[in-house]
Amino acid sequence: MKLLNWEVGIDQPFFLICGPCVIESEQLAIDTAGYLKEMTDRLGIPFIYKSSFDKANRSSSKSFRGPGLEKGLEILQKVKDQVGVPVLTDVHEDTPIKEVSSVVDVMQTPAFLCRQTNFIRKVCEPGTPVNIKKGQFLSPWDMNNVVEKARETGNEHIMVCERGASFGYNNLVSDMRSLSIMRETGCPVVYDATHSAQLPGGQGSSSGGLREVIPVLARAAIAAGVSGVFMESHPDPSVAKCDGPNSFPMYRIEETLKVMKELDTIVKKAGFAEDSITDFGSGDLL
Amino acid sequence: MKLLNWEVGIDQPFFLICGPCVIESEQLAIDTAGYLKEMTDRLGIPFIYKSSFDKANRSSSKSFRGPGLEKGLEILQKVKDQVGVPVLTDVHEDTPIKEVSSVVDVMQTPAFLCRQTNFIRKVCEPGTPVNIKKGQFLSPWDMNNVVEKARETGNEHIMVCERGASFGYNNLVSDMRSLSIMRETGCPVVYDATHSAQLPGGQGSSSGGLREVIPVLARAAIAAGVSGVFMESHPDPSVAKCDGPNSFPMYRIEETLKVMKELDTIVKKAGFAEDSITDFGSGDLL
Amino acid sequence: MKLLNWEVGIDQPFFLICGPCVIESEQLAIDTAGYLKEMTDRLGIPFIYKSSFDKANRSSSKSFRGPGLEKGLEILQKVKDQVGVPVLTDVHEDTPIKEVSSVVDVMQTPAFLCRQTNFIRKVCEPGTPVNIKKGQFLSPWDMNNVVEKARETGNEHIMVCERGASFGYNNLVSDMRSLSIMRETGCPVVYDATHSAQLPGGQGSSSGGLREVIPVLARAAIAAGVSGVFMESHPDPSVAKCDGPNSFPMYRIEETLKVMKELDTIVKKAGFAEDSITDFGSGDLL
Amino acid sequence: MKLLNWEVGIDQPFFLICGPCVIESEQLAIDTAGYLKEMTDRLGIPFIYKSSFDKANRSSSKSFRGPGLEKGLEILQKVKDQVGVPVLTDVHEDTPIKEVSSVVDVMQTPAFLCRQTNFIRKVCEPGTPVNIKKGQFLSPWDMNNVVEKARETGNEHIMVCERGASFGYNNLVSDMRSLSIMRETGCPVVYDATHSAQLPGGQGSSSGGLREVIPVLARAAIAAGVSGVFMESHPDPSVAKCDGPNSFPMYRIEETLKVMKELDTIVKKAGFAEDSITDFGSGDLL
Repeated sequence: MKLLNWEVGIDQPFFLICGPCVIESEQLAIDTAGYLKEMTDRLGIPFIYKSSFDKANRSSSKSFRGPGLEKGLEILQKVKDQVGVPVLTDVHEDTPIKEVSSVVDVMQTPAFLCRQTNFIRKVCEPGTPVNIKKGQFLSPWDMNNVVEKARETGNEHIMVCERGASFGYNNLVSDMRSLSIMRETGCPVVYDATHSAQLPGGQGSSSGGLREVIPVLARAAIAAGVSGVFMESHPDPSVAKCDGPNSFPMYRIEETLKVMKELDTIVKKAGFAEDSITDFGSGDLL
Repeated sequence: MKLLNWEVGIDQPFFLICGPCVIESEQLAIDTAGYLKEMTDRLGIPFIYKSSFDKANRSSSKSFRGPGLEKGLEILQKVKDQVGVPVLTDVHEDTPIKEVSSVVDVMQTPAFLCRQTNFIRKVCEPGTPVNIKKGQFLSPWDMNNVVEKARETGNEHIMVCERGASFGYNNLVSDMRSLSIMRETGCPVVYDATHSAQLPGGQGSSSGGLREVIPVLARAAIAAGVSGVFMESHPDPSVAKCDGPNSFPMYRIEETLKVMKELDTIVKKAGFAEDSITDFGSGDLL
Repeated sequence: MKLLNWEVGIDQPFFLICGPCVIESEQLAIDTAGYLKEMTDRLGIPFIYKSSFDKANRSSSKSFRGPGLEKGLEILQKVKDQVGVPVLTDVHEDTPIKEVSSVVDVMQTPAFLCRQTNFIRKVCEPGTPVNIKKGQFLSPWDMNNVVEKARETGNEHIMVCERGASFGYNNLVSDMRSLSIMRETGCPVVYDATHSAQLPGGQGSSSGGLREVIPVLARAAIAAGVSGVFMESHPDPSVAKCDGPNSFPMYRIEETLKVMKELDTIVKKAGFAEDSITDFGSGDLL
Repeated sequence: MKLLNWEVGIDQPFFLICGPCVIESEQLAIDTAGYLKEMTDRLGIPFIYKSSFDKANRSSSKSFRGPGLEKGLEILQKVKDQVGVPVLTDVHEDTPIKEVSSVVDVMQTPAFLCRQTNFIRKVCEPGTPVNIKKGQFLSPWDMNNVVEKARETGNEHIMVCERGASFGYNNLVSDMRSLSIMRETGCPVVYDATHSAQLPGGQGSSSGGLREVIPVLARAAIAAGVSGVFMESHPDPSVAKCDGPNSFPMYRIEETLKVMKELDTIVKKAGFAEDSITDFGSGDLL
């Protein structure tokens, strides 16, 4: 699949979606986009800048939600113009989709909303690339129905994204089988390495996270085989206004991406044994 | 809490929300509402008729979705006028809330949408009673945040509803602890006995269900202690246009409600030991 | 099924297995057995006294394990002789089964060991009644295989016991569907209301528990329909040497049993709709 | 840790434990051990041959269990002598540990038995290296208690093994976080890539599996970072007498190991960012 300027897919180098969870300020947006652009250029990783203008589904109504639609889009446009990177943002049930799609390069739908037919269709209709996050409550094979609905709009640029499955209360587990099962949708599969590290609701009025497992999960997903990786990163997660506990410290991201890049190259060069493992052999190889 | 004409709560007899999943036709709506009204009058159970005008979040886009908003509200109004029962319907991210709230007595929010702050607020704003379903991905204690958001609108008629928690893929489990834990929200707790029997996505392009466990779960929930019970029922589940596999055959409902009524009376008369179980005793009772 | 002096089964009043987790002293054993015997006589509930001589599978090796086999059996024999109640104890992979079965009336196998074929057979061989706990990792339908192995020994007095299923880490959920599904084994189904309230490993080096949910779960299980209930109880759970956090305070047990007795009577008099729910009706009942 | 002739650990190349689930015949044992030895020599992977003499915990009592202790040990001794490889076998609650430990190089304890204190100690006492499988019901941090019990015997050669966690009924999920969390035990962490692909009990009277996810999971685990990998493999899984559905076809194993070897080298050369990720940075890196 052609995504923006790149070929993306299980046989192509992985692309990165990265940025702070929420747009905290114009300055932070420009700075982080620039920092990440330089780094990914250096590493040869196609890069899409991510940031949200409104965190609609915070655990508590007291949490910071972002600059709002108008100001948010303005900042994202500046990021595109000044830094020269494509941008992604997430949209919600009441987002004016056309307005957003006229600015951003990729839209992303929240995991909780993956089964809202009208919403998924509305987001896909403009034809802008869409990254559909799989619900924490959904099996990987059930994404086939979601993708079918999305494609009925004529949009050919649909991606699917694993971000962890419900595992008891206040915990998520990343099922690496999901990454290969979702390839069957025909869509590029993206792994969200930071929300997968979330401990939802685990801190009373906000969600907790295990930042230290992010590189573990990111490496594992790359080795399982994905088309892209999503990571939220912040220059200083301890003061991040959203998802700090599962945000990755930005100054540590290059070393992690470097390993991921090497792993990705090896895995994709070797090909995926799982695709032909039903060929069982005669048993007389010995 | 006063709900419509009744006092509802953990110390009051349970009320029933019941009806076919979706409005299949005016005739079926009037007939089933009438049948259920007579039955619940006979049993002395406060009754709210439930049916949906649009099933927005079907697994597949090929499934029957209902008569739509306008025709649906018209039928629900007729049910109110001709049968004389209050009605409940579920609303979605793109439902015109005011229009719906001007007709129905109770609105219900989908489990998948319980964390959508804007949506929950929009639904609660008119002040019409709202039954908020707990997400399959949410712990019972995390409903406190959801309720807090709902109450900030000034709406004092919020109910919370258990409908099963994600348990691996394509399966739900009803955690009966949840029914007592959610009492701490101060809201009447409703148990959805039919969706809890769902096997989500378990049948390819639609969700399956284990109809035979519905009475088991309904009895258990009543004994755990609830303010209300939600059940979808159809005169002939085998031809129901929605959720047939976990719809309860209507002609079997009276015998089940009768047992539930008796259990409810006993449990509420005895009171709830769990409310004072932190009083441990001195150990010298012997 | 005839168990000791009683008919037990889904159409018979429930029996109770109850006592402190571990034999802390002869005096405590005699006292608690006497107290529980009087109470259950008063309530008309068939009663089996439970206590362990060795808690082999504690989380930590530093925990109290009990008086050991010889002393433990001696105390259980005294309980039988002096109090006049049948006794149950749990056996482990290295327990001398014959020795134990010559004293106790019912043996119980640990949930973790339900898939150990040799062990299950060894325990069932003497013909003494056996209560087989379902593993936290096992589906209710997979108990059919376990029961088949047990019955191949010729033992006709096999019971199966639900004690919660793994639900993420450090948490268990009681699936009430399991209680009806396991009836298909043909064995009396027992619900363990105290271990189901466990939070395994949740307290570092010992398992935690939510004592306050025990009455909720016990009532729910009775209403779902069981042949027997298992509960660990202690005069003062705060000083219990084992499983305190999910042990039920003994002085609160009578009020809870009383409600359970009433619920049990109603449910069993009415019969179980789920047994015939596959009879769907013609849809023309209206 | 020194294991047999090699240094093993998170900073050492991974070792492989591999072989057919059960000893089907002397000829098959010698042949497969020879085939795997040649291959692993070629790839430079330290290799331990694995096969069971008795599959005690089969789902059904009708399944093939193996040649038994005496014959089994005789065959394993021949594998050692004729092929020149170290051997591993699994032991059970009633296995004569000393007899087994006098022949095999590594003993392995079943996941279901990880909480049986007496058993774990008995197996560890001879000092032979032991691979302790984590129970499907256990959190990774709860392995600390298990390891502590094992080490109290003086045995310094303890390994811990992830083989999937219960995820609803009849399904397991491999939590890759577990592989880094269990490093905190100080023991080499092994990933069991074939049992993790099991669908326990999923086929009526035997356990099913998803053979095609084995390479996905194996690659992911290597990238997460492990000391060793365990895989059951058979020349012809379709006729394997045990665990066929999640056994890996032997003629496909070399290509998969080759990729794993390359991934392992990269990951271990780069080091593990997660070990120092608590160092958050000042936020002024830009």
